Amino acid sequence: MNHVGDRAQRVDAVVKVCGQAKYVDDLMERDMLYAKVFRSTIAHGWVKRIDTKKAKALPGVEAVVTFEDVPQHTFPTAGHPYHIDPKHQDVADRNLLTRSVRLWGDEIAAVIARDELTAQKALRLIEVEYEEYPPLLRAEDALKEGAREIHKGTKNIIKKSEYQLGDPEKAFQEADIIFEDEFRTSMVQHCAMENHSAYAYMDSRGRIVVCSSTQIPHICRRIVGQALGIPWGRVRVIKPYLGGGFGSKQDVVVEPLAAFLTTVVHGRPVKLELSREETFIASRVRHPVHFRFKTGVKKDGTLVGAEMRLISQNGGYASHGHSIAGKCTTTFRQIYQQHAVKCAATTVYTNTPAAGAMRGYGAPQVIFGLESHMENIARELAMDPVEFRLKNLHQVGYADPLTGLVTYTNGLAECMAKGKELIRWDDKKASREKPAGLKRRGLGMACFSYGTGTYPVSLEIAGARIVMNQDGSVQLQVGAAEIGQGSDTVLSQMAAETIGIPLEMVHIVSEQDTDISPFDTGAYASRQTYVSGLAVRKAAEEVKAKVLNWAQRMTDLPAEDLDLVDAWVVKKPGGEKVLPLARVALESYYHPVDAAPITADVSNNARVNALAYGCTFVEVEVDMAIGKVEILELYNIHDSGKLINPQLAEGQVHGGVSMGLGYALFEQLLFDEKTGKPLNNNLLDYKLMTVLDTPEMGMGFVETYEPTGPYGNKALGEPPTVSPAPAVRNAILDATGVKIDELPMSPQRLFEKFKEAGLLGEPGSK
Amino acid sequence: MNHVGDRAQRVDAVVKVCGQAKYVDDLMERDMLYAKVFRSTIAHGWVKRIDTKKAKALPGVEAVVTFEDVPQHTFPTAGHPYHIDPKHQDVADRNLLTRSVRLWGDEIAAVIARDELTAQKALRLIEVEYEEYPPLLRAEDALKEGAREIHKGTKNIIKKSEYQLGDPEKAFQEADIIFEDEFRTSMVQHCAMENHSAYAYMDSRGRIVVCSSTQIPHICRRIVGQALGIPWGRVRVIKPYLGGGFGSKQDVVVEPLAAFLTTVVHGRPVKLELSREETFIASRVRHPVHFRFKTGVKKDGTLVGAEMRLISQNGGYASHGHSIAGKCTTTFRQIYQQHAVKCAATTVYTNTPAAGAMRGYGAPQVIFGLESHMENIARELAMDPVEFRLKNLHQVGYADPLTGLVTYTNGLAECMAKGKELIRWDDKKASREKPAGLKRRGLGMACFSYGTGTYPVSLEIAGARIVMNQDGSVQLQVGAAEIGQGSDTVLSQMAAETIGIPLEMVHIVSEQDTDISPFDTGAYASRQTYVSGLAVRKAAEEVKAKVLNWAQRMTDLPAEDLDLVDAWVVKKPGGEKVLPLARVALESYYHPVDAAPITADVSNNARVNALAYGCTFVEVEVDMAIGKVEILELYNIHDSGKLINPQLAEGQVHGGVSMGLGYALFEQLLFDEKTGKPLNNNLLDYKLMTVLDTPEMGMGFVETYEPTGPYGNKALGEPPTVSPAPAVRNAILDATGVKIDELPMSPQRLFEKFKEAGLLGEPGSK
Repeated sequence: MNHVGDRAQRVDAVVKVCGQAKYVDDLMERDMLYAKVFRSTIAHGWVKRIDTKKAKALPGVEAVVTFEDVPQHTFPTAGHPYHIDPKHQDVADRNLLTRSVRLWGDEIAAVIARDELTAQKALRLIEVEYEEYPPLLRAEDALKEGAREIHKGTKNIIKKSEYQLGDPEKAFQEADIIFEDEFRTSMVQHCAMENHSAYAYMDSRGRIVVCSSTQIPHICRRIVGQALGIPWGRVRVIKPYLGGGFGSKQDVVVEPLAAFLTTVVHGRPVKLELSREETFIASRVRHPVHFRFKTGVKKDGTLVGAEMRLISQNGGYASHGHSIAGKCTTTFRQIYQQHAVKCAATTVYTNTPAAGAMRGYGAPQVIFGLESHMENIARELAMDPVEFRLKNLHQVGYADPLTGLVTYTNGLAECMAKGKELIRWDDKKASREKPAGLKRRGLGMACFSYGTGTYPVSLEIAGARIVMNQDGSVQLQVGAAEIGQGSDTVLSQMAAETIGIPLEMVHIVSEQDTDISPFDTGAYASRQTYVSGLAVRKAAEEVKAKVLNWAQRMTDLPAEDLDLVDAWVVKKPGGEKVLPLARVALESYYHPVDAAPITADVSNNARVNALAYGCTFVEVEVDMAIGKVEILELYNIHDSGKLINPQLAEGQVHGGVSMGLGYALFEQLLFDEKTGKPLNNNLLDYKLMTVLDTPEMGMGFVETYEPTGPYGNKALGEPPTVSPAPAVRNAILDATGVKIDELPMSPQRLFEKFKEAGLLGEPGSK
Repeated sequence: MNHVGDRAQRVDAVVKVCGQAKYVDDLMERDMLYAKVFRSTIAHGWVKRIDTKKAKALPGVEAVVTFEDVPQHTFPTAGHPYHIDPKHQDVADRNLLTRSVRLWGDEIAAVIARDELTAQKALRLIEVEYEEYPPLLRAEDALKEGAREIHKGTKNIIKKSEYQLGDPEKAFQEADIIFEDEFRTSMVQHCAMENHSAYAYMDSRGRIVVCSSTQIPHICRRIVGQALGIPWGRVRVIKPYLGGGFGSKQDVVVEPLAAFLTTVVHGRPVKLELSREETFIASRVRHPVHFRFKTGVKKDGTLVGAEMRLISQNGGYASHGHSIAGKCTTTFRQIYQQHAVKCAATTVYTNTPAAGAMRGYGAPQVIFGLESHMENIARELAMDPVEFRLKNLHQVGYADPLTGLVTYTNGLAECMAKGKELIRWDDKKASREKPAGLKRRGLGMACFSYGTGTYPVSLEIAGARIVMNQDGSVQLQVGAAEIGQGSDTVLSQMAAETIGIPLEMVHIVSEQDTDISPFDTGAYASRQTYVSGLAVRKAAEEVKAKVLNWAQRMTDLPAEDLDLVDAWVVKKPGGEKVLPLARVALESYYHPVDAAPITADVSNNARVNALAYGCTFVEVEVDMAIGKVEILELYNIHDSGKLINPQLAEGQVHGGVSMGLGYALFEQLLFDEKTGKPLNNNLLDYKLMTVLDTPEMGMGFVETYEPTGPYGNKALGEPPTVSPAPAVRNAILDATGVKIDELPMSPQRLFEKFKEAGLLGEPGSK
């Protein structure tokens, strides 16, 4: 392959480095109005009285609307494809503004003013009186008998599910040993560079145009339509470049309100941008999940049965609903073979920020639990953790009993071998001395598997349109959304590969416009290189076939004897040049009788999925006295199938591992226990990884060739963030003998755990 | 038909009336640089020396470029489709900037500055020294033996052509009477509300983006590529709404220079906008043409042979070259039958503004000559001018011997009957008294024919893309350019008609973007409703077929028994409702197995043409003492086939007739005889029709059904402007007995002619 596999420079590299790339903020109209949301200062309760008179009277205020003024359509916000069957639709549990307060910062009213400052001043003039209830900040609180319902009639349960494969009770009876563990993960936020931002206006015929920083333009269009109760075709969504999303922009957060607000001011453009403080609490967070694992094992380390029960804390609104818990229960069974499996999951409303999609979509949580649990078992069995895992891996040919999907490629064993080699696992294990002192070193590892896209849970539809220019170059239009992950580049490489032209002859249209862009549900689930890639390949194949048909007419050589290489029509085999592509393209435009420019406009419904695999190997030094973990060496090894662009693949791993380490060690959104007020919803107090916290990140790739992928490729966007946390946890265990069962493994928590374990007794005591 | 034929409101009515429509000027980037052109102050000569040092040194000036700095590719500017055969390509006779001065205001250098004022100041600091030659302001001067060549090696002739049908010499011998006449038309300018304007910048990968007020975005892209010598795919042209064009924006005037200038400043956005004064001389004008007619007639009024020789004055550059002269010679033969025809045409370079396309494309000139000549013959034969014309009309079935095109519809006889009736021709003729006094009334009429599009001279390719939304509404994308003529509206009506949905469910994408919009050569030749309409119908038929196929799957009723009416799938016959369209559309998006949104992306090469016909009937009162003509009554009657939107049709007739009357009575661009300096290139001194000069304009339509048109329609955009001038000329003749043989029929010219005819002798003498 000429382009697939090439370390091509990102097609948006220069434009981004030079500051030319246009984001929502750069596209703002002149004479824009500014909207601000009036947010609750309680976490749970009810608005008894609201008075907006003073705010309305402030000069420069164009309008103030409250929950009484908005359409009473409930709508969902999750970036999932629509389903015709209402039973499979997302939970529609919110209005544009609310009288019932379900979290601190809930959206009660909105102000539209001629400038931002006036809007902010007006917020302070709104008077509100609440009936306040004690906030239910944890799933346990919300599930207590008699707990007040955050959404009426739900008992605070969004959904429960369970499944069973084989006979777990029998398996446990046959096991030699039963292991049980409990783990908890923390609430974290995506912290994309660009906050949520949108502006909306009405066009001449009353259609609403929303320009938004969204990962899911076509879904956003649908949800704006649902929220406003108008036909979806009367909404147009435009997505320029994005300053990151990581899943938080896979929810439709600001767009429906912005769209409604422009209707209040007769279609004038209205901007609605969240501050960083608002983004933390009013966009989405990653679910804290509480796991209980139970596993039956033979003495030789063979897994025979496993059970996982989880409670996922979803916050004040359903967002992605039970899907993340569902993904946990699926991921649970897809790495290791066992005779019987049982899962039960519950997703719960609480008075905290709504949890939604975040890089990994449940996998960082469940893999933290699962791989910590596996480590505990291996150590208890006195087996090498790698050997223990290798013994139990699913193999190629594994057919998932619930999805029906067959595994055609699985490079996990090779990934582990590579990880061991890179970190010199055996040498270090062999040469290590008995741990002593307050600074101790340890080795840890953890594995993961991760699906590519969402099939068969959701529809996996993608579109691509290619238009060939007179010089043989092409425009490539996709509905897939470039959100910083590099999809524009890899999709361009694919088009160049299949058509047979240099990469610089592919001009990708980066902006998505739902009026024009082919339909694609957007950027999520590490799906784009795979699902949208299939659509690009299909369109490119159509274009190539049309070129060769024209060439046949022009040369009298049969199309099947011709090929297209580096913008030349050549003879097969041998590659003798026959015609420049530009000559064929020109003919297609200007042939007096049969002129018809070469184009393809395709849609592809990808009814496939493939598991990507990988692992993290890490060596840490734990300074127990101050609870500090230093990463000495770290390797993430990935089987993501064929790499379309190794340079971008490395970038994904860098970013994902860094995010995974923040999750492991530092990040957690905290709330005042009594009021539910967020305590650290800003970048000073929320401990995001900085460049100084970030170690050298090593990596390796095992390039299997996945036959269901367009070019042998599988997921890579999310996987790197999944396994660092349990690997670090297992390394800390290796170093200190202390089992950490909760994230983040922050200095305070480690200090407490080490103290509890007696490791920090009297100075010099151990 | 439900939508075709409906007086639907323009889809852009509200946006334009409310000032929301975006024109080039509204889309300007922040931090734009401004360019101004340094223009010659002589009309003919050569730049001996140019010094830009002082201009470059002015603070705020970013760059100054001269003819020495531009790429040395010659390029054409005409909005014609490209032709692969170089012999059929447009004349490429200019560079971006020139050392040879060919007209007053020729483009020698350009300044780029941080603001407009600085750019203007810098122009004044450029020093230039010329070698000046006497300007050749008329074709006669340029053709004189030994005249200096404006373009080397041309003898000042762009092209000559001639053809002969039958044996004219024999026909003249067989004729009872031979008539000879000579006519001259004037140089006029389009005077679109919006001047020529563009801005250009380079995107991240070095592609050049031009946002332009152009009628021909796809052709503009090609010409920018040719001018800069870069592959055409590296250029992107965006066309927002236009403030009119009338053919002047069917030339690529400012775009290539704007595109080049952004490359000089490393891709920063550069704006290049012509002032009104510049637009008059540096865009395009309508050709002054000198005609000589010779016609042989039988005593009974039967035409037997005709000859026309013309010399067309093209100005300093070729622009559309000989095409306008060619159109004159074609139009000449297409109204009246005769045994033999002979035509000879010459297009000549002169030191005047370049002449190009202007509404009517040669027809206003040739029809002024032809219909004045016909009137002279009828009067000489003492025949009623209408009877004389009726006797000689081509009939349905006429096959043009040179184009091979067959006439399927010809409503000209009915048009004349309608005109006579509306103006009460026979009554007025019968009741009139012998003319006397200085104010005299007269009746006049003139006919025209006008092709629809340019086939078979040029390629007539058009594209349309339709995307159906989940609610059954559609986006319609066309490459056809809305330039104020209403194409967005009529093409939307067509889509609504063929698909079977209400007009408000068609969302047309008005902006053209050559990266995305289907290929279409643009707005000219009254082609869009016909040629682009065929593409829209083809796309709409495909969409409808796909909808009915889905409906068949969903209902088990055969697709051929189903129809789509008003957004419902219904049974044929009877119209019983089966399924709402929105339900089908939703299925196409979300069917778990076969999801594929309903779209069509088509190209259509229209190898057809159809003659539109019509006539003007007018009654005037001539105040001979002051040379003033008052239009008492006027009717333009059109056979444009089926009217897609009668309201828009009426608007076209209003605008066209008004333009035709300005051409008849007032407009003429004048030059200083000695220097070639324009004398009235501004809206104060150039006598454009004002609303006070504009009479009530009556009209009528004869709706034939043209089988080659998508909905029975033929040209209507340009035709209304063609026949008013000769009709007024013939009415003046009727009133005064004086034959005017030159345009405009301004007070000064009329006064001189009346005086020469002795009508203004001693007061009361006649």
